[in-house]
Formats: sequence, C-alpha cells, structure tokens
Amino acid sequence: TNCPTKPVSISFVNAFPVILLDLLPAKNGEEATMQFLLELVDILTNYVRKTFDRSTKVLDFHHPHQLLEGMEGFNLELSDQPESLEQILVDCRDTLKYGVRTGHPRFFNQLSTGLDIIGLAGEWLTSTANTNMFTYEIAPVFVLMEQLTLKKMREIIGWPSGEGDGIFSPGGAISNMYSVMIARYKYFPEVKTKGMSAAPRLVLFTSEHSHYSIKKAGAALGFGSENVVLLSTDERGRVIPADLEAKILDVKQKGYHPLFVNATAGSTVYGAFDPINEIADICEKYNMWLHVDGAWGGGLLMSRKHRHKFSGVERANSVTWNPHKMMGVPLQCSAILVREKGILAGCNSMCAGYLFQPDKQYDVSYDTGDKAIQCGRHVDIFKFWLMWKAKGTVGFEQHIDKCLDLSQYLYDKIRNREGYEMVFEGVPQHTNVCFWYIPPSLRGMEHNSKEYREKLHKVAPNIKAMMMESGTTMVGYQPQGQKVNFFRMVISNPAALQSDIDFLIDEIERLGRDL
Amino acid sequence: TNCPTKPVSISFVNAFPVILLDLLPAKNGEEATMQFLLELVDILTNYVRKTFDRSTKVLDFHHPHQLLEGMEGFNLELSDQPESLEQILVDCRDTLKYGVRTGHPRFFNQLSTGLDIIGLAGEWLTSTANTNMFTYEIAPVFVLMEQLTLKKMREIIGWPSGEGDGIFSPGGAISNMYSVMIARYKYFPEVKTKGMSAAPRLVLFTSEHSHYSIKKAGAALGFGSENVVLLSTDERGRVIPADLEAKILDVKQKGYHPLFVNATAGSTVYGAFDPINEIADICEKYNMWLHVDGAWGGGLLMSRKHRHKFSGVERANSVTWNPHKMMGVPLQCSAILVREKGILAGCNSMCAGYLFQPDKQYDVSYDTGDKAIQCGRHVDIFKFWLMWKAKGTVGFEQHIDKCLDLSQYLYDKIRNREGYEMVFEGVPQHTNVCFWYIPPSLRGMEHNSKEYREKLHKVAPNIKAMMMESGTTMVGYQPQGQKVNFFRMVISNPAALQSDIDFLIDEIERLGRDL
Repeated sequence: TNCPTKPVSISFVNAFPVILLDLLPAKNGEEATMQFLLELVDILTNYVRKTFDRSTKVLDFHHPHQLLEGMEGFNLELSDQPESLEQILVDCRDTLKYGVRTGHPRFFNQLSTGLDIIGLAGEWLTSTANTNMFTYEIAPVFVLMEQLTLKKMREIIGWPSGEGDGIFSPGGAISNMYSVMIARYKYFPEVKTKGMSAAPRLVLFTSEHSHYSIKKAGAALGFGSENVVLLSTDERGRVIPADLEAKILDVKQKGYHPLFVNATAGSTVYGAFDPINEIADICEKYNMWLHVDGAWGGGLLMSRKHRHKFSGVERANSVTWNPHKMMGVPLQCSAILVREKGILAGCNSMCAGYLFQPDKQYDVSYDTGDKAIQCGRHVDIFKFWLMWKAKGTVGFEQHIDKCLDLSQYLYDKIRNREGYEMVFEGVPQHTNVCFWYIPPSLRGMEHNSKEYREKLHKVAPNIKAMMMESGTTMVGYQPQGQKVNFFRMVISNPAALQSDIDFLIDEIERLGRDL
Repeated sequence: TNCPTKPVSISFVNAFPVILLDLLPAKNGEEATMQFLLELVDILTNYVRKTFDRSTKVLDFHHPHQLLEGMEGFNLELSDQPESLEQILVDCRDTLKYGVRTGHPRFFNQLSTGLDIIGLAGEWLTSTANTNMFTYEIAPVFVLMEQLTLKKMREIIGWPSGEGDGIFSPGGAISNMYSVMIARYKYFPEVKTKGMSAAPRLVLFTSEHSHYSIKKAGAALGFGSENVVLLSTDERGRVIPADLEAKILDVKQKGYHPLFVNATAGSTVYGAFDPINEIADICEKYNMWLHVDGAWGGGLLMSRKHRHKFSGVERANSVTWNPHKMMGVPLQCSAILVREKGILAGCNSMCAGYLFQPDKQYDVSYDTGDKAIQCGRHVDIFKFWLMWKAKGTVGFEQHIDKCLDLSQYLYDKIRNREGYEMVFEGVPQHTNVCFWYIPPSLRGMEHNSKEYREKLHKVAPNIKAMMMESGTTMVGYQPQGQKVNFFRMVISNPAALQSDIDFLIDEIERLGRDL
C-alpha cells in the first residue's frame, strides 16, 4: 500500500488475497474479515490524509465517456461472476481517485463542504449498526438521540421549553415538502382523506430567490407550480414584505386561498435572509402558515453574533434546518421542526397496525415511523449528535463565526480590487460572496452592451472548466434573473484558511487573465 | 481495549487522550486523526465480530426512561461544552452496547437484516467521500455507477436493452410515491402546473395487503386517501383480478378516473405476489398505469428459480425494488425504475438555472438532480455496486435461494408440529412464514370462541416481550384483518442457518409454554 507510516497496514498487507467466501458470516471468518476491513481503512485514512493536503488536487477530472470506457483497469460494469477481494480494494481506491475531494480546503463548490472527522466516525458507526429509525424496538438509542436533539434545536429556535414536533428527513427539499403538507393539514385536514378537491384553490408564496424545492413541492403535492407565487426581492435578494401583502390581496380577490409563506433564511445564491418578523406580521394578519427555510442559514442560529439575522424565527410555524450544510455534518442530515406538537403524526399517520403494534411492552409513543412519509428511515442523527457532543454548542458557534469571518475577508479583499465587480452591494448576510471577475480584455467595454454581457456570461464557465481540468480548486457559478453568470463563493469548510481564499483569487486571475 | 487479538489496537492504545482540536484540519493533525479513527475502528470491528457470535445477545433491552436517565454514565443529553475524545469513544461504545444487533444470525425482526461486510465497506467509503448525487461535477464516479446499475436492473426486469429511467430514492415509500407522481404526470401533465383541479377525480388501486405507502402517497400528493381503493385478496393475500376490474368499473360509473394500479410483489406480512400478468391485462384494457411494488420481493428477480413469481413484470410501467431488503444491502438503498425514458425529468424538473448550469464543459445530461424530488441526494449506490462486484449476479442469486430454502425448512418444520397453526395454507411465496404458536393451555379450546381469540391475541406480544427482555432472538408479529396477532418470520439474513431456525422455535416454545 501507499501508506508506509501507518502501523495498521504493515501487519496484514501480505496476507491477501482472501476471498469473499472467507468473510463473515463464514465459519472462522473473523480473521479474513478483520484483514479486509483494515486494508480498506488503510485506503480510507490515506484518502482522509490527502484530502487535507493542499499539495493534492481537489479532483482529477475526466469526462463521462472516459470513465465509462475504463480508466487503467477501473471497470464500472457489473457482471455475473464475482471479483476477487483484492480487486474490490482496487475498485475502492479507484473510486476515490476519480472522485472529488469535497473536504479539501479549496473545495468551495457546494453549500455542503468539509470532512469533519467526528462526523465521519459517526457515519462509520451508523453504517456498522445498520438499523432503521422506524421504531424504538430496533433503534432505541438513535430514536432517543433524535428526540433530544430535535428538542434542543427547537429550544435554539426559541419555542417555549423546546416543545413541538419534528423529524430528520433525507434533505432540505423533503423537509420543505413536509412544511407544505403540514400547513395544508392544519387548515384543510380533510384534504388528507378527500384530496385537493376538498379545499379551495390554495396558494403558496415564496421568494423569487428561494430554493426551487417549494415550487417542486407545490407541483408534487397537487397545488400546481402556478399556484406557487414568487415574491419580489430587494437588490440584496430579500423578500419585500409589501410585495407579499399585495400578492396575498391579489390572490384573495381572485377567490383563491393564501395558505403558506416560505421565508428563506439564507438563500442559495445570495445568502439572503428574508425579514421574518415583517413576514410573520403579515402571516398573522391573514391567518397563514409561516415556514422558515433555514436549510442553508440554520447554522447561524448557533452563533450569538449572527443569529439576529433570524430575528422572529420563533414566530414561525415550521423551520427547515440542515446540519449537513453550514454545520459541516456529513450528508444527509436535515431537520423539519414544527411548533405544534402532534401535527406530523396527524398529517401523515395511516395507523398501519401491521407495522406499529400498540401492544408492545414499552412506551410506543417513541415509535416515530408513522409520522414520516418514509417507512424505513436512515439513521441521520448519530453523526450530528456525536459532533455536538465533541464540539459542544460553542464549537459549532466558533465554526460558524470563523466561516463568516473568512467570507468577510474575501469580501474586503475583492470589493475594490481591479477586475472585480460585486453582484450586490454591502457585506453579505451569509458566507455567500457573489462577484464577477472581469478579464482585462473586457475592462474597458460598455457594461450595458450586448457584446459585453455575452462575453462576461462566458467568463465564469470558462474559468470553472479550467479549474476543474487543472483540479486546483472548485467554486460555483450561475446566472440570476437578468444577471449573467457570476461566481458564488461560499465557505462552510472548516479546513479553509485565509490563504485558501487568497489562492482562489490568484487562481481565478491566473486562469481568467487571457480570456 | 477489549480486542487483544487485533494488530491495530496495540500500537496506539496508550496514546490517548488527544483532543478535538488536535484532529485534522489542525496543523500536524494527521497522527491524532489516525489514532482516533483507528481506535474507533477497533470498537467497530469488535462489534462486527460480536454481531456474528451466537453466544452474544441480539439486544440488551432497556426502556426509554432507563436510557434517558443515563445508563452507567451514558448520557444522551447535549451540552454547550465539548467532551473529550476519550469520552466520545466511550459514547460510541455505549451507543452500540444499548442498540440492536441487526446483523445477528438470530435477528429476524425486519425485512432488512444482516450485516454484509462488503456493503459495510461500501458505506464506510461512501461516508469518507461525503458527496452528493446532485451532479456529475461533484460525484462523477457515483453518478455513472448509478446509471449503469439502474440499466442492469431494468435489463433484469426485462425491458428491452435495459432502456428506461430511474433513480435511487431514500426508501420504498418514496419510490412508491414517485410512481404515483409519474403516473399522474403521464396522463395529466397539466397537474404539475395547475394542480389537481386540472384533472378529474383520480383513483388509485392497491391490495388490502399492500404496503401503506401507496395510501400515504395518495394522501400526500393530493388525491386523498379515500381515493385509494383497496382490493380484495385470496386467502394467500394475492389480489383477485376480478375484484380489481369490478372496482374499476364502479369508479368509472361514478364518473371518476381510474389512474393507477399497484401490484405488490412480496407483501409485507404474507410475502404474497399479486398476479402481475392478469393485472397488466386489466391495466391495458382500461389504459391505466401499472406499478409493481417489489420493495420486498425485488431480490427474487435475481433468482432463476424464483423469478417466475414476477411473471409479467416487464409489462409494468414502473417498479420499486429495494436492494436494502432481500439483497442485504445496508439501509438505505431503494430504486424506482420506470419504463419510459425521460419521464422522471418531465415530471419533476423545475429547470433551476442557478443549480444546473447548462454551460458546463461536460455532457450535462449526466446531471441527475433535477429529475429527483430531492435536491441534495445521499450516495446510496456505491455499497450496492460494490456488493454486486464482489458477489456477481450469481452471488445474489445464491443468497436469495438460500433464504427461500431456509424459509421452506421452517415451514416444513412447523406446519404439522403440535402447538402451531399456519395463518395461510401452502408453501409461502416469499420467505414470510406466518404462524400462531398455541400454548398448551389454549390447545383444547374452541377456536371460534371470543375467549380463545382474546387469549391467542396476547400470546405473540407476550413471547416477543420476553424475547426482547432476554435478548436471545427477535421476530415480528402483527394482526392482519380479522386474524389475531401472529408471528411473521422473515429470512433475509445471510448469517442465518437451519440451527438458528431451530433455536427460534425452541425459544418460542420455551417462553410460551406456560402462557
């Protein structure tokens, strides 16, 4: 193996090959199993070590057809006959080799970045336990951890005594879908049994900058995407409350029923926080459900310095909060939190007696399966619980504050720098720093000309393609409304330092200089 | 540590404590990180070893209040301040100690059992890679593995050249939900934008023995659970096609629109397979969508001996198939497979330009995010792909055949044994063996008497409670329709042997003898 310094690899490296049938549950399979797992761990820890090494690439890019054709013996095709375990370990090494190091200090491409060692340990344990959140019976410890953690999150939101409801779901889109379902159940419970025809035409409201999952939920749940009304925002991407009220009145005048408002707390592109208190006033006035999508912003609730951006969140009826984003918990870890206790079960339970037996010897109120839209449910809680234990609330706070400081560092560095233009003015509310890099060849041009816009639109994709080909760093780009492609830098990676920000800027300039 | 035979533990056991801040990404954090991870691996491999050891308990049962009060220093509460890494490792050990060994050869409680070593290795790697199925850009290898594996599964279903569509979802309930959404989109695409009011009253049909997720999908997606019509079954739990046709005609006569039939291939309790070909005839006649819920039965498609139970499956429009059940893949791993190519994207895409940039340097048709109802999506494919590589198709076949043989062994053993009654006659179609154990005190009683039924109803829960308290084995029970509580034995655990079946029967008799 390529890891000479680690004690584990030496002791069994020559013992291979073992074969699949030697592994547990085979009789006397312990030794072979331990050998195999430790050889794998050697590969994994080597990957972990390299992930944090700035001298390694973030990725070794290949096109789909290249990987499909087979890279140096890495064959993705499945066959009828088994491979040797030695080949399996080679496959594992190759899988990592041709992947993307999302924990690399210079990987800034997604809202979820970083590789938290405690979170990783939590995932390894979770997969070893290989159980299901379905009932207390088969996941007693994890079910209680989920309950305690959700309560803690509700306390942090500010709901009295942390009372309420909630569940971990397979991601923010599903959590947001839950919020729409619950809102509908609260106001029109008969839709559960009779369908949408039991309700008037229901309308959902969300920012034009919000995540597409609200619209997707509207389509999936039978509202129709046209009944998801997009709200105008200010230049910073925050919903304009007056626009919300005007659109509610418009909908009412048409005879439709305004049901639900989503306030985004940390928008995907700008990192904008909608003004929750003002939106809550309007929701109260019109008796509407207020959901706060804090999938991305939620982590800021842990920071005494930044949680004011969530001012009013305790007035929300439901909140989405993804620890797998800003808090660095491995994917997947998303919570939907609800202020009213019992409403999740009311909304979703089908009382399947063959799955949830009421006559067990323990308190079956701990069986959570029937309040989910899932049946089997992956254990997403343990890694998060373990990280919370290891860091304490203060550790999460330090991480959040550090990331926001780094984002401020980037903002300060480029806002007056030659060749940069900010997409919106002012210090970003979250770690999102949105900017155009203007190559020298474009700097003298008229900004409003079609030619300039067309050329600028291609700059970010071109630089990004070169970044990926060279594998040095990764950062996202996208257009937004009338604005042509710009870079969206986000920082949630605990490994990132100021020097990595400097590197990114140098790299953009190196790659973009001659465009 | 308690694992003296393993080489890894010896070299660093005395090096603790390191502290959290010593771990990567800390400068020079490699050594501490490796120490911590290897100490964890020591705990995990020790757990793996014990899982397969029949002299250990399946579980060490405690009531919720006991675990909440804290067991010998195992404190579930979260706090502001961090714990030491030494305590973190103790927490990991305790989490496993008070959990349930779902891979134990005598754990028969769920449809998902077993601990496949290759699958475990796959999960460890997946969590180390910690990425997201969202785009090719950040998960190139995994995205291709998913594509190839879905194609292979479609070939096995029997769709020409394996063409079609599909995605891995977070479980069978979500996969079934997809099928309903796609069916609606196929026949009434305008519901996506205009909502359910753009369609007539739509009706879904599914067996009274089917999984509750179809009804749940009906409620969630705006059909209403009353518009999910339950079909009568024969005494073996299989849908009666004539009943389906009669109910379709009844619905049509009322002016509603029959949209969708779910045929269950392996029902949760009886393991029944609905007659797909006869149902397909009816679906064709009335121009309806045919979904096959093979969440539990899907594995049988891998067996030349047993796949005839799926006869007609190639006529389905969509199929749910959970490798995390009968095929022993770690949770979560569920696929929704669709015959018509492109329809998933048609149904779910919102074309969010800020998330899926069309101007990338690679072929963006590999970006799968917009066809999912999720945004971020956990990598569920790798462990499955790796197991397939290691076992080959033939290895899955052997596993399936072995489990069905074991179930036949159990059936043969108890069908004429004193004190047992089968819930339905004949060899089970799947590994589900459903039976009552009749304690000696009940054997002379009139079976139709209320007293007998009430007493028998309590037998399985009582035995199960004693099993859990003693921790020797676990098997499920439930009532079904008018039938009082009975045991449902299922075998998907690759570690189970005939002697474990014998043990279960002995244990039921030991615990139930004096009831």
